[in-house]
Amino acid sequence: MTLADATLDEVDQVVAQADGCFSTFRKLSGFNRAAFLLQIKKELQKDQAEIIGIAEQETALGKKRLSMEFERTLGAIENFSRLCTKEPWLKPKPTPKTDGTKGGIKMLPLGPVAVIGACNFPLAISVVGTDTMSALMVGCPVVVKSHPGHPQTCEKLADAVRRAIKISKMPVGCFHLFHGKRNEVTQYLVKHPLLSAIAFTGSLGGGFALHRTNQERKNPVPFYAEMGSLNPVFALPYLIGSNSKKFAQDFVQAVNLFAGQMCTKPGALFILKSSLTKDFSHALRTAIEKQITLPMLNSEIHANYENSCLHLEKEIQLFCSSVNQPSGNYGKVNIFTMDGSKFLGSRNLRAEAFGPSSILVLVEDENQLLRIAESLDGSLTASLHGTEEDHQLSEKILPILESKVGRLLYNGFPPGVVPGNATHHGGPWPATTDSRFTSIGRHGYQRFLRPLFRHS
Amino acid sequence: MTLADATLDEVDQVVAQADGCFSTFRKLSGFNRAAFLLQIKKELQKDQAEIIGIAEQETALGKKRLSMEFERTLGAIENFSRLCTKEPWLKPKPTPKTDGTKGGIKMLPLGPVAVIGACNFPLAISVVGTDTMSALMVGCPVVVKSHPGHPQTCEKLADAVRRAIKISKMPVGCFHLFHGKRNEVTQYLVKHPLLSAIAFTGSLGGGFALHRTNQERKNPVPFYAEMGSLNPVFALPYLIGSNSKKFAQDFVQAVNLFAGQMCTKPGALFILKSSLTKDFSHALRTAIEKQITLPMLNSEIHANYENSCLHLEKEIQLFCSSVNQPSGNYGKVNIFTMDGSKFLGSRNLRAEAFGPSSILVLVEDENQLLRIAESLDGSLTASLHGTEEDHQLSEKILPILESKVGRLLYNGFPPGVVPGNATHHGGPWPATTDSRFTSIGRHGYQRFLRPLFRHS
Repeated sequence: MTLADATLDEVDQVVAQADGCFSTFRKLSGFNRAAFLLQIKKELQKDQAEIIGIAEQETALGKKRLSMEFERTLGAIENFSRLCTKEPWLKPKPTPKTDGTKGGIKMLPLGPVAVIGACNFPLAISVVGTDTMSALMVGCPVVVKSHPGHPQTCEKLADAVRRAIKISKMPVGCFHLFHGKRNEVTQYLVKHPLLSAIAFTGSLGGGFALHRTNQERKNPVPFYAEMGSLNPVFALPYLIGSNSKKFAQDFVQAVNLFAGQMCTKPGALFILKSSLTKDFSHALRTAIEKQITLPMLNSEIHANYENSCLHLEKEIQLFCSSVNQPSGNYGKVNIFTMDGSKFLGSRNLRAEAFGPSSILVLVEDENQLLRIAESLDGSLTASLHGTEEDHQLSEKILPILESKVGRLLYNGFPPGVVPGNATHHGGPWPATTDSRFTSIGRHGYQRFLRPLFRHS
Repeated sequence: MTLADATLDEVDQVVAQADGCFSTFRKLSGFNRAAFLLQIKKELQKDQAEIIGIAEQETALGKKRLSMEFERTLGAIENFSRLCTKEPWLKPKPTPKTDGTKGGIKMLPLGPVAVIGACNFPLAISVVGTDTMSALMVGCPVVVKSHPGHPQTCEKLADAVRRAIKISKMPVGCFHLFHGKRNEVTQYLVKHPLLSAIAFTGSLGGGFALHRTNQERKNPVPFYAEMGSLNPVFALPYLIGSNSKKFAQDFVQAVNLFAGQMCTKPGALFILKSSLTKDFSHALRTAIEKQITLPMLNSEIHANYENSCLHLEKEIQLFCSSVNQPSGNYGKVNIFTMDGSKFLGSRNLRAEAFGPSSILVLVEDENQLLRIAESLDGSLTASLHGTEEDHQLSEKILPILESKVGRLLYNGFPPGVVPGNATHHGGPWPATTDSRFTSIGRHGYQRFLRPLFRHS
């Protein structure tokens, strides 16, 4: 088995195979496809130790986190399998009698789906994640491009799917994995005329480039990219006054969760200047210094993180860092600081730095705080922290934040949820390309369906 | 009141006003906005005679059709008003307990919406159609660009909305109409950074051009274009053998409905060569010759129709036409004919000719019929006509047609429905830019919402 890039001919072949089996695959009963999903789960379980072992070698996430992620991935597959036996999307919605017609609307699968997964969840947002599983569930064949950060893990996961295809007697074309480190291969896939939808999770840069590639398609298709996000945190004065130590600890912990390699890492904390008292300043420094500096996914990601921090240091002040590690791809927690007017004036400093850094923005007054909120681009999440005494300001800022994000946390930090059935993981541009849908959770499958009104 | 094109500054102003009132408008209670919609209905009713009179002058649709369309438009407004008192989209969907979090998903309005209506429904797909009303219902301010084919009608409709805004004390910015005959004005609107969604109904050419314009946006937003569509009709051998006269009459009537100026006009009829017996040929000619040649919307549309027919005549044979009218913008029914292999080889002949023309395609055999079905682009509708004896072929062709359209009629002709609450009016590219949604019917409002997961 080679991990060389697929040739463009090979990409053609696998997409053609996916398209070729679509009409058969979508006509299988829900029970059939549900059994297929369960079989994938079983095959994954057989390889559990080996899969986690390979992922440990390819990423620095560690056994504990990878085991959790593995369980979460299996749980999602089981949920989709259960849903698939019911196929609620196939149930025709009755047409009101006033229309004078019989028949109704039912949901149809779109067709072959391309999946391009993320670096930070090699199991859960990868070959057998929500994208693949929900697409297979509704009857869409899937073509996965492996992630160059963990290609062997991808192969091992795909292996389980391939065995399940044989055992469950599914059409071979319903699932393919290929490798493509070169952008050219990915772009060729995204432009492939036989595709019906594309699901991508990754950086803003990568997502934006593929968004542009997708726009060159002759037959436009839904393009779902889940990309970078600032995930702003707003802490109002009374909250900080009353609870500065715990707030500081929780904030820094959210920044450093899995070395800041979460889609929902808080990239900026906004407080009023007057809130940076000696107490809070001390609490924040202590929390930062106490953080254990964690290894990042791989050397490339670590180097990118260091570069983005160097870039920030040229523009704004470093507030405090965690203790360095002597060697390896360890990412120090770096909290930078700037004032509100600088933030308002410099959009280039707002991009997500993938890793455990964040920016403490010291805001002049309430008015500036509201203007900052208004100026924000879309994010996956925003968090608002306040006490009852902050109510008035809170009421002003909440509707603004609502209009900027897909998930709003009150007195909580992202991620703030165990990813589950009801998760909504999406948000306005540029957090995602399509804020109407979610890439995680049960409703992810709705990305791959469209209504058909069938008269009978 | 002038009907001159808006300047780009004026477009800026109205979109800024729409954006400026969004946070107020969306926070109004459903009862408030429902009352506003009902008030629009009342104001329209006051002007009913005048509106229909102006529309009669600007289009050739005639009083009877325009009166029907007016009633349909009022009915849709009333439906949306009723729905708005319930605001079902605001109801939080509970988060399963297993997630360990409180809160839930609710739907939020996207923001200011641009509406660009169609020529063929000056009342129902225009200033106060589903696009505008469903957007206002969920709390999105609306900016409408008038249609150059009926600008005075648009003004008169907008007048009613403006009065309703005053009476219902809505923010002035929640609705604006401006004129823009020049493409430049429309393009400027579509690229406006403060817009959150765009709804367009019109030709494939126009929709495709705006689709490209939309792609140049820096912040991509949902772009809903409902465009041209071939709406293929497949008639299987036994059906034609048993019922050729009625079938021929109904088909030609569907082609000539409102002078072929329907989004769902059947643009091609596919039959097996062997089905073109003397009987069916005679029945079809009789049906065509019996059709009354109807006036088209205006001279420009009539000229375009004549040109597209001239183009077709150079490429393929004319089968039969209805009787000419001595003068005016009358559009003859023109049924052309070609054989299946020619159809398979010439994609340029498949475009919608807006007007009462269609193409009778004589197909070699069943195999070629299936290949033709596979080769079709997306359409709003497809129709399959067969008897029980056609069952076997019918079963082969149905799944193919399902994958090509948004609405499938069995032994019926488009439109086939009275537009109502449950209508699905959409279909795969290039019939629309987003087959997941509908531009007509109750569910049209879902185009202007996105989910927000709010933790509490």
